[in-house]
Amino acid sequence: MNALADISPAALRQQIRRGEFTGNTSGVAPGFVQCNIVILPSLWAADFLRFCQANPRPCPLIACSAAPGDTALPKLGAMDIRTDVSSYRVFRDGALINECDNITELWTDDLVTFALGCSFSFEEALLEAGLDVRNVSERVNVPMYRSNIPCETAGPFAGDMVVSMRPFLPADAIRAIQVCSRFPAVHGAPLHFGDPAAIGIENIAAPDYGDLVSIHEGEVPLFWACGVTPQVALEKAAPPLAITHSPGCMLVTDLRNAELAVL
Amino acid sequence: MNALADISPAALRQQIRRGEFTGNTSGVAPGFVQCNIVILPSLWAADFLRFCQANPRPCPLIACSAAPGDTALPKLGAMDIRTDVSSYRVFRDGALINECDNITELWTDDLVTFALGCSFSFEEALLEAGLDVRNVSERVNVPMYRSNIPCETAGPFAGDMVVSMRPFLPADAIRAIQVCSRFPAVHGAPLHFGDPAAIGIENIAAPDYGDLVSIHEGEVPLFWACGVTPQVALEKAAPPLAITHSPGCMLVTDLRNAELAVL
Repeated sequence: MNALADISPAALRQQIRRGEFTGNTSGVAPGFVQCNIVILPSLWAADFLRFCQANPRPCPLIACSAAPGDTALPKLGAMDIRTDVSSYRVFRDGALINECDNITELWTDDLVTFALGCSFSFEEALLEAGLDVRNVSERVNVPMYRSNIPCETAGPFAGDMVVSMRPFLPADAIRAIQVCSRFPAVHGAPLHFGDPAAIGIENIAAPDYGDLVSIHEGEVPLFWACGVTPQVALEKAAPPLAITHSPGCMLVTDLRNAELAVL
Repeated sequence: MNALADISPAALRQQIRRGEFTGNTSGVAPGFVQCNIVILPSLWAADFLRFCQANPRPCPLIACSAAPGDTALPKLGAMDIRTDVSSYRVFRDGALINECDNITELWTDDLVTFALGCSFSFEEALLEAGLDVRNVSERVNVPMYRSNIPCETAGPFAGDMVVSMRPFLPADAIRAIQVCSRFPAVHGAPLHFGDPAAIGIENIAAPDYGDLVSIHEGEVPLFWACGVTPQVALEKAAPPLAITHSPGCMLVTDLRNAELAVL
C-alpha cells in the first residue's frame, strides 16, 4: 500500500518543504502532473525559452516565471520553488557541484524557473489503457539513449535529442501511439520505433541513462523524446549557474494529467 | 486533369445510372465517402449484420436498408442501389457468376443492402497529411494478404481477416497511425506493423489480392483491416444469392470523409 497515493499535491509540497518527504516522486499523488525543473540566470533565460519553444517534443514547457526572482508558479499551484522540490542539483559552468533539499541560500532576484512536462504523465495514461510499461513493471528507471536527431539550436543551447525507450508488441505499440498522442504537453507520441540504428543508437542493450529493461519476443522498441535532452543541452551550454530537480524528484503540481489531454 | 474531380456525388450517381460513367471510382468526387456494397437475401441479413457489428475493423458498417426490398439508403444520399454502382458482381452459392452495370432484373423485395466503409477515405486523409501512400503513388491496387487474425463468427459468416499493407518510414508510420485513428468508421488505425509472419503472412512479396508495392530501405509495412474480409466470409458462407460492387467500383455517397472523423 502506498500511503502517499491519496495525498494532495499541495499537502505533499508542504511535507517536502518541512523535510518530511524526501526522495523519488514516482507514483506519488497519481493523476497530477509532475514537472522537470530548470532554473537559470535571467541572461540565459530567453535563449532557453526559445530552445524549449523550438523543441517542444523533448522540452514541453508547461510554465515559467512571470519575472526574474519569482519563486511562485501560480499556474501549477501555490508553491515556493526554492523549497518544494525534494531534491535539487546545482551546476556551476555546466558541472554538477551539489545536490540539496532546498535552494533558499542560492536564490537571487535574477533567477528564472522553467517547468517542463515529464513522461510520468503519459506513462500513467498508458497504464490506465491496460498496457505494460516495462520500466514500471520491472520497477527500474526508463532506459534512455543519445540519438542522432538534432535539436534546433537557440543561442548556446543545442545538441542531439535524448530518447526514452519502452518496448511493446506491435498492436500495443499502435495503442500506445494513440494514447500518447493525447498528451503533446508531455512529450506526446513516440518519435521512432524499430531499428535503433536509424536514429543513431548503436547498442540498445547499453542505455546512456537509466536502466536496461527486457524486450520480449516479438516486441518492438518505441522511442519518445525525453526530458533529459534539455539537461544535456544545459550541461553543454555551461551557464555560470543552473539548478534542476534531481532525477525522479520532480515538482508535483496541482495540474491534473487529464487537463493536459488534448482529446 | 481529372474532369471528375469536381463532380458532385449525386451527379456522378446520375451519370452511372445512365451508363455515362463506367469503371473505377478511385479519385472521383474526392472528399466524399465511397462504400463497399453487399446485398443479401433477408434470411442471411441478420447474421451478416451481426458479423459486421462483431468485426467493426474489417467490416465498418456505415448504412443498411431500413427494410428488405428498400432500394434507397437515404443516409448516404438520394439513390437507387440497383443502378447507382458502376459495376456489380453477382454470386450464386458463393461462386461469381456475372458482372453487370445494374441489378434491376435481379432485384426482389427480399434483398437487404449493406454499405461498408472503404480505405479510400483514410488514404485521402493520409495524402492530405503529406504522406506517401505507396499504392497511390505507384498507381496500383493496394496489396492485400490473408492474415491469421480470426474474425468473430456470426452464423455462417466466419474466417480470418484480410489486411491491406502500406509501407512507411517509422516516423511517418506514427503519423499514419494518428491520422487513421480519426477514422474508425473506415477501418481506423492499423492492426499490426513490422514482422508479417506475426500475423500469419508468409511472403510479403506475394499478396493474396491486389498488387505488390515497393518497400524502400528503412520502411516498415503497416497492416490495416481490409474490406475484402467480408467478401471472403461471404464466399465461404455461400448464400444462394449475393451481390457486391466490383473491386474499385464503389458506391459514391453524399457523406463527406470529414463527417466520419471522430476528432
